[in-house]
Amino acid sequence: MRVDGVHYRSIWAADDGASIEIIDQTRLPQAFEIARLATLADACAAIRDMAVRGAPLIGATAAYGLCLAMREDAADEHLQAACNALLATRPTAVNLRWALDRMRGVLLGTPPAERGARAFTEAEEIARLDIDTNRALGEHGLELIRDIAARKRPGAAVNILTHCNAGWLATVDWGTATAPIYQAHDAGIALHVWVDETRPRNQGALTAWELGHHGVPHTYIVDNAGGHLMQHGLVDLCLVGSDRTTYTGDVCNKIGTYLKALAAHDNGVPFYVCLPGSTIDWQTANGADIPIEQRAADEIARVNGVLPDGSRGTVTVTPPGSEVANYAFDVTPARLVSGLVTERGVLAADETALRAAFADALPT
Amino acid sequence: MRVDGVHYRSIWAADDGASIEIIDQTRLPQAFEIARLATLADACAAIRDMAVRGAPLIGATAAYGLCLAMREDAADEHLQAACNALLATRPTAVNLRWALDRMRGVLLGTPPAERGARAFTEAEEIARLDIDTNRALGEHGLELIRDIAARKRPGAAVNILTHCNAGWLATVDWGTATAPIYQAHDAGIALHVWVDETRPRNQGALTAWELGHHGVPHTYIVDNAGGHLMQHGLVDLCLVGSDRTTYTGDVCNKIGTYLKALAAHDNGVPFYVCLPGSTIDWQTANGADIPIEQRAADEIARVNGVLPDGSRGTVTVTPPGSEVANYAFDVTPARLVSGLVTERGVLAADETALRAAFADALPT
Repeated sequence: MRVDGVHYRSIWAADDGASIEIIDQTRLPQAFEIARLATLADACAAIRDMAVRGAPLIGATAAYGLCLAMREDAADEHLQAACNALLATRPTAVNLRWALDRMRGVLLGTPPAERGARAFTEAEEIARLDIDTNRALGEHGLELIRDIAARKRPGAAVNILTHCNAGWLATVDWGTATAPIYQAHDAGIALHVWVDETRPRNQGALTAWELGHHGVPHTYIVDNAGGHLMQHGLVDLCLVGSDRTTYTGDVCNKIGTYLKALAAHDNGVPFYVCLPGSTIDWQTANGADIPIEQRAADEIARVNGVLPDGSRGTVTVTPPGSEVANYAFDVTPARLVSGLVTERGVLAADETALRAAFADALPT
Repeated sequence: MRVDGVHYRSIWAADDGASIEIIDQTRLPQAFEIARLATLADACAAIRDMAVRGAPLIGATAAYGLCLAMREDAADEHLQAACNALLATRPTAVNLRWALDRMRGVLLGTPPAERGARAFTEAEEIARLDIDTNRALGEHGLELIRDIAARKRPGAAVNILTHCNAGWLATVDWGTATAPIYQAHDAGIALHVWVDETRPRNQGALTAWELGHHGVPHTYIVDNAGGHLMQHGLVDLCLVGSDRTTYTGDVCNKIGTYLKALAAHDNGVPFYVCLPGSTIDWQTANGADIPIEQRAADEIARVNGVLPDGSRGTVTVTPPGSEVANYAFDVTPARLVSGLVTERGVLAADETALRAAFADALPT
């Protein structure tokens, strides 16, 4: 998508032919800075420290991270160690495992001397697949928005609420929840997006930054506000992403998603989850069985932003001595999900629909 | 309640017999500082600058402010001027007007030479009434907690979730939602409180500070987390306050309360609202008719806290150019409210129960 009028992906191979470049998302939304990953350790740190974030982009970064690892040492032992190191960075992310499994399978079938080049080809393929997938799910989601627009008075904006950043910054391009939004905007449909702040890490600021740069009208709100907006008819559609989706349609996504799904259900607002098929967990039936990552208390206690003098700063908002708990995700049960927007169409959030659509992708 | 082992109210007469002392809430939760109000101007500044906050405490501060005014000049003209000055500090605060009307009526019926002493007696009476009301509703709420504790294994903590600060800092003592918590804690019932941060103003930090100083185990969480906690059986009871309650039991409270009520309902968690009868709106049947205040965007865009060097600071968290909307309250419909904890008992959230309990208080 566009930044200051220029098209960017969130990750790409650097011109030096040896390293990878990313947008350093820890600097956004205040500063747009590109960071270089030259080693496996750089790639692990980028994922762990959330310089890259979002399930699809984490997967792509892991794939590129294996390229860097193979250039360091292409032996089987290092391949396995690199996979382990990358996997340990974000335990909940199913795309991370998926990308690593795919890369490892390909690389184990490749002579060590060729693994560096082969890893690069395969990582590019994973990135390209992500872009194609998101574009395709965006096209299906666009039809949902078009239908809502057709039921409103001509020219009235379709009000969409989104949570966290399931935007192009969370993928290689297009985003998941934002793919239908960008496509609808580019198709000339009037839109307005309510952007949940998404404490503790305020990824809503990333979404607002993305939307602003692409020219999509939007309003930043605290996570507490969405229920009130839905009660008052100010939301036509909720679109969120998914970090992991059970094969029964339960959706594990950023903490707080479940609360918005409840409010949507209570107010008759359609609640759609946008996800690539790769986030479907074919091993897990019940979302309640998904382990939920608990992250550092500092993410809640300390808030990053810009000081009055324009420099970056951090303020502590919690009282000394108070315990802090930081659950990163929650699970929205399938019964609250209007549908799943995938690259293979808009599907019911149930096992039958998912198995039918992804029959060829099922694990054997 | 206790601070560093010593009992405090949020406002009291100073030992010098001439001035009033408050806890400067603009310094909390990082610093506990007592401020002295020696003049009417001091009292006005304390309210206007939010050194005191919370509807009941604002009312009590205005009453004490008139004591200071009467000691400066007990003439009718100065009494009226003082009322006007105090009312202008927070023109929309209902308790402020109520306390001033009561004080003025009493003082106009008192010879000027006696007004200084009489004002003090009446302000103390207003403060005492607030404390008695909160203590009474706390006793009723205590029974709810005791019943839950009795159903848990012996010694297991009752997990309570609260939103915003309906604590003793918002009243003269006890608080509303916190009154049952303090009484249960003091009665030796094992408790743990999940404290919602409550963006945008983070009043959860005040609640956490209160609970910490009184020795109540608690954990600070983001507003997004409560649904997940309830899904996992980690919340036994929700207790919140109310800014206004319709006579049909709809509850207008801090933005985000509705989302927690939905989650409580979805998970079979009891959701009780603690309120003095004075917050019941006998004119309004439908909570959706309550006008919802929209406050300044800066409350969301700028976050206050403590900088690494220990000084206070503010960081901006929104991207430049993004719109921000700041709805201050939402309405939880009575159907989601398990009951209303009042000074006259725990009542069903419906018109019949409220009219029966407050028959003598109904407007004529």
